[in-house]
Amino acid sequence: MSATWGRKFKITIFGESHGSHIGIVLDGVPSGTKIDMDSIIEEMDRRAPGRNDISTARRESDSPEIISGIFEGRATGAPLTMIIKNKDHRSNDYSQVRDIMRPGHADYSSREKYKGFNDYRGSGHFSGRITAPLVFVGAIAKQILEEKDIYISSHIASVKNIKDEKFSEETLNKEVFKRLKKESLPLLNKSKREIIHRKIIEAKEEGDSLGGTVECSVVGLKAGVGDPFFESIESVISSLMFSIPAVKGIEFGSGFDMSKMLGSQANDEFYYDLDDKVRTRTNHNGGINGGISNGMPIVFTLAIKAPSSISKKQRSINLKTKSNQDFELKGRHDPIIIPRVIPVVEACAAISILDCLLVDGSEIKW
Amino acid sequence: MSATWGRKFKITIFGESHGSHIGIVLDGVPSGTKIDMDSIIEEMDRRAPGRNDISTARRESDSPEIISGIFEGRATGAPLTMIIKNKDHRSNDYSQVRDIMRPGHADYSSREKYKGFNDYRGSGHFSGRITAPLVFVGAIAKQILEEKDIYISSHIASVKNIKDEKFSEETLNKEVFKRLKKESLPLLNKSKREIIHRKIIEAKEEGDSLGGTVECSVVGLKAGVGDPFFESIESVISSLMFSIPAVKGIEFGSGFDMSKMLGSQANDEFYYDLDDKVRTRTNHNGGINGGISNGMPIVFTLAIKAPSSISKKQRSINLKTKSNQDFELKGRHDPIIIPRVIPVVEACAAISILDCLLVDGSEIKW
Amino acid sequence: MSATWGRKFKITIFGESHGSHIGIVLDGVPSGTKIDMDSIIEEMDRRAPGRNDISTARRESDSPEIISGIFEGRATGAPLTMIIKNKDHRSNDYSQVRDIMRPGHADYSSREKYKGFNDYRGSGHFSGRITAPLVFVGAIAKQILEEKDIYISSHIASVKNIKDEKFSEETLNKEVFKRLKKESLPLLNKSKREIIHRKIIEAKEEGDSLGGTVECSVVGLKAGVGDPFFESIESVISSLMFSIPAVKGIEFGSGFDMSKMLGSQANDEFYYDLDDKVRTRTNHNGGINGGISNGMPIVFTLAIKAPSSISKKQRSINLKTKSNQDFELKGRHDPIIIPRVIPVVEACAAISILDCLLVDGSEIKW
Amino acid sequence: MSATWGRKFKITIFGESHGSHIGIVLDGVPSGTKIDMDSIIEEMDRRAPGRNDISTARRESDSPEIISGIFEGRATGAPLTMIIKNKDHRSNDYSQVRDIMRPGHADYSSREKYKGFNDYRGSGHFSGRITAPLVFVGAIAKQILEEKDIYISSHIASVKNIKDEKFSEETLNKEVFKRLKKESLPLLNKSKREIIHRKIIEAKEEGDSLGGTVECSVVGLKAGVGDPFFESIESVISSLMFSIPAVKGIEFGSGFDMSKMLGSQANDEFYYDLDDKVRTRTNHNGGINGGISNGMPIVFTLAIKAPSSISKKQRSINLKTKSNQDFELKGRHDPIIIPRVIPVVEACAAISILDCLLVDGSEIKW
Repeated sequence: MSATWGRKFKITIFGESHGSHIGIVLDGVPSGTKIDMDSIIEEMDRRAPGRNDISTARRESDSPEIISGIFEGRATGAPLTMIIKNKDHRSNDYSQVRDIMRPGHADYSSREKYKGFNDYRGSGHFSGRITAPLVFVGAIAKQILEEKDIYISSHIASVKNIKDEKFSEETLNKEVFKRLKKESLPLLNKSKREIIHRKIIEAKEEGDSLGGTVECSVVGLKAGVGDPFFESIESVISSLMFSIPAVKGIEFGSGFDMSKMLGSQANDEFYYDLDDKVRTRTNHNGGINGGISNGMPIVFTLAIKAPSSISKKQRSINLKTKSNQDFELKGRHDPIIIPRVIPVVEACAAISILDCLLVDGSEIKW
Repeated sequence: MSATWGRKFKITIFGESHGSHIGIVLDGVPSGTKIDMDSIIEEMDRRAPGRNDISTARRESDSPEIISGIFEGRATGAPLTMIIKNKDHRSNDYSQVRDIMRPGHADYSSREKYKGFNDYRGSGHFSGRITAPLVFVGAIAKQILEEKDIYISSHIASVKNIKDEKFSEETLNKEVFKRLKKESLPLLNKSKREIIHRKIIEAKEEGDSLGGTVECSVVGLKAGVGDPFFESIESVISSLMFSIPAVKGIEFGSGFDMSKMLGSQANDEFYYDLDDKVRTRTNHNGGINGGISNGMPIVFTLAIKAPSSISKKQRSINLKTKSNQDFELKGRHDPIIIPRVIPVVEACAAISILDCLLVDGSEIKW
Repeated sequence: MSATWGRKFKITIFGESHGSHIGIVLDGVPSGTKIDMDSIIEEMDRRAPGRNDISTARRESDSPEIISGIFEGRATGAPLTMIIKNKDHRSNDYSQVRDIMRPGHADYSSREKYKGFNDYRGSGHFSGRITAPLVFVGAIAKQILEEKDIYISSHIASVKNIKDEKFSEETLNKEVFKRLKKESLPLLNKSKREIIHRKIIEAKEEGDSLGGTVECSVVGLKAGVGDPFFESIESVISSLMFSIPAVKGIEFGSGFDMSKMLGSQANDEFYYDLDDKVRTRTNHNGGINGGISNGMPIVFTLAIKAPSSISKKQRSINLKTKSNQDFELKGRHDPIIIPRVIPVVEACAAISILDCLLVDGSEIKW
Repeated sequence: MSATWGRKFKITIFGESHGSHIGIVLDGVPSGTKIDMDSIIEEMDRRAPGRNDISTARRESDSPEIISGIFEGRATGAPLTMIIKNKDHRSNDYSQVRDIMRPGHADYSSREKYKGFNDYRGSGHFSGRITAPLVFVGAIAKQILEEKDIYISSHIASVKNIKDEKFSEETLNKEVFKRLKKESLPLLNKSKREIIHRKIIEAKEEGDSLGGTVECSVVGLKAGVGDPFFESIESVISSLMFSIPAVKGIEFGSGFDMSKMLGSQANDEFYYDLDDKVRTRTNHNGGINGGISNGMPIVFTLAIKAPSSISKKQRSINLKTKSNQDFELKGRHDPIIIPRVIPVVEACAAISILDCLLVDGSEIKW
């Protein structure tokens, strides 16, 4: 527990990497919402593996099948369910993980939790593959938000110690967002592409992997959305983001850098712009004051650890023999997961913000 | 919404800075739990203002009054309610905030949300004062956890750009925890105390304020606690931590530094120690794999922004005159909030971990 | 657990009969709602004991004190908290209930649940007195509903085997509702008043008590409110109604009588009335089809058992001596609770319906 | 919303009568639980139509397919998902319901709620068919409860005005439960079978339908389970029971009859039996005091209305032509739904009670 998240836009995920299907139930999509399958497939393809030389060659077939909640191309308002059939089982690749606990993975912690009954093949329910259904729902959420002129985008903020620039007023626009969506290594500063690509290929050749950070922004959200304390926008977004395997940190606006600022620097001063719209001169708070949006872009950055699956020899334990044991992980692995995590991050941002908006909009319709 | 947090150890907070009372309802405290008021008061005093030269001189009287849920010194199992009467109103200090939106505060965002009906005096429901009840409940949670040999401690990890050292095996023990609890500037490396104190006094004299980071650790938690995805330990802890005003970032284990590591560095390798206990050689993952505890100490660090209330002249807007307007904030302000945030962080850690444990323990008692 | 109910109009109750206070936190009242204390007091007085010869002479002083969430007479949108100080302790009256389990009461079941740590004085948290805060919140809900022309009323449908008539088109109107609200024995057919009053006095004189049924109706609710399955209007209303001590049954529309009808009788046929409004010719379904309102009055009836506290000698057990033991309950008791339950029923109806409406209204405000 | 129910044993249902699949996600089944498919199929067959002359001849193929959460025959602890492929579409049978609102059905209320986007074919998401997944999960819950010696059974308490006897100490035992499970018309008093069967055939021949009541009991539940107020056993059970289409009333123990008793009759007096076990001399309260089990059998009765689908000519409205219009419903219909509702009632009882037990069992495992 719990496989269910959300207050008004509620999702329930299920499935294991090597089970028969993975999928999701979405409860709360407004009736009449047009479901554009093309843009759903487009988003899901961004997450799919095997698209280029920096991604694992395993070829999953992520063809989503909607089995409830749609009638004549539109959401009925009843629960919308999507399943994906798992095709690429080859479970022999994973037989060794039954007894040897892979470092960085949930093998040991989940085995303790479930008393050994968990499906250990390919991380089972803990597989990154379970994020595919999140991208499916995120694509629907994006469609709904875009009708309200709310747009979400993200880019690689860093790989190892190589940094991209941060989002700024110049880059927070639809053209840039469109470009970022198409790139296999979405960067604001394209000159960093080559060195990052080289680092990835190096790690791949050494059987190692790389981490980094992702910056995400939501533009177009009006002031006054979100709640104090337990349902602050930060609380809602972070609770969902930490559901994404490999996320180990989140900061809003200037985040950890903000901790080094004086109050006089960190405070985002308000002003009326030429159109008499309230804005802030800086956006260190990432568009959120007291848990509630202030009308500036929502900005947050995630720390993504390097994929735990590497080919290099590692030390670990064998629970069967109850002894320490070195091992090498067979199979092909992603040397970096960030490009594939990016659509998941955007999906979770879309789901979070849409849920906040639907909660916020509650009032008697009459 | 929503003032309620928790699944099995459920809290509901209420109150405004200048209302008649603040308080909390705790639902789910196991019946028969002895409530030690002395240790509750001790924890609440750590958060109280006016204790030294680095804290505001406002003197709140945080005497908690338990009005339900206790009978003959023990929790009955029914909702336990605590209220604190607000004494220090002096609301004239805050009259200017009705129209001028203080930068960094929730004045503007909450006004938009509540259509102008929010209690604007002293930040109202958005006041840091509302965290006092969290410390009250946290003290009860700590008592329950300590009976299971689970201990929580934290220290100032940095102020501005001056860093303390990080928790290590040498410092994660009860003696150090006891020392940290007593200090007004809890630091692992005491030699940093003087320079940090001087920085704070300087900021205070300039009418400015300082931010920093807090590192918190939970030791003694067995492996197998927590859940995959939406109720991962990271999701649960972060959702509560972002309820604390001024928190703008959280990282687990090595967090953002981990994003710079190779997979071969970031993976915490397992081994059997001399007592045949499973441990990891490093703890970059902060004691959590796949959202579930792995038996190592839970470690996380928070980015705390400098207090938004500063005496320096600031630029802002006046919503009444609909014009830009400079202003100076009257009254005395905390030049740094971190020492007072620390007991709140520990309280939220205790509440989160206890909730995870109670959820995890669910099985049929027979 | 759990002291909290509601999705968008969320309440958290607390308190014991002989503790220092009872009270409630209301989260989700729309900001700007005018709080009319006079009508709140009027509703709470309907529930208060000691008003006439058919009610216990204990005189509770139910003066509600609002301690958060209100500013300048209006709801701020932050949690609204109300407490009532318990004045009439006289706990010696209840000393015998520590060991002797009163039949019909929660003495034994709660003692088992809480392992003997429950506050047993005056039923503690299980006291009917805890419904006073529900009436407080219900009064606020009624104010909000009445602005939307939704009205709630109820009457004594039966006492023992003496039946009042049922609500009909002739009696479902504001004049009748106003009259019912003022009467100590609210009946549609006033000719039944005398015999019912006599039965009550007889039971009182014998140290016994009487049960009956209450019919409640909500008029003015449009079609399309509520949800299929788990959040059907019936599910939502019944879950709250069974929180009221003494309620042992609920039926919607013709309920149990409906089980005796043929489908051709039970089906409420639709028609367009002269104003082209959709209506049904009968209302056996109580205004609900498939869990969702159909625009006809919501109607439901509750079975209320006779008060368990009677003066007559009863047989029971003494947990201390572990033996069977006869006993007589000291003190004065209500010979019938129905007149005092009626405002609680209406309050719970108002809370349920408002919560459904607020949930239903969720959509993006833009 | 909301398709999700439960606190620790959490279900999410989905599907439409004429969509591609119906199904359910079960979150919270204890890891290691053996899943006995034979007994699942047996329960689901009890609900399936077309088994005899009193049931519709439509032949659904309810072959449940488990697509997640099971590994080597046991629950993994991750979400367990089951889907059923819909085979018998023949959607032309339902084309008339697009515009003509069938009395007693959710056609009109759901159309208002979903603004006309609901799937109207065969009642769509409002179809009784969606209860098949509840029976699936109920069968798993029953297996878990039976290992704790908790048994659930039910019988037809009445059809129209013909009454079966009530459960008594003589009939609340496993032999009777086993017999009831096998019968197409489960009755305690078998002599009523013939007249009830004749009434059903008569109704069928007239194109009409019959309602009745179902009595259900849970035996073996210890005292102390459940919660006061909002999560009383009555609240939990009733909220789930009203999810079953056709249920219009519920009473616990003697329920509405209890409203006619004096307090001295209604109070269930406690006594120590020969084994020093606490029992009550009567069980008018249906095993529940103050929302919490008292160790006696849980007993409740449901009012089930006659199926709304009848062949007789009915009056209604045509929303397209905006006029009153008579119509006759094509197709074959169940003249009575009670025999098929019974396994659904038992499933919902099992799910409710198991959820209460799992919530109640929460304490720190150490």
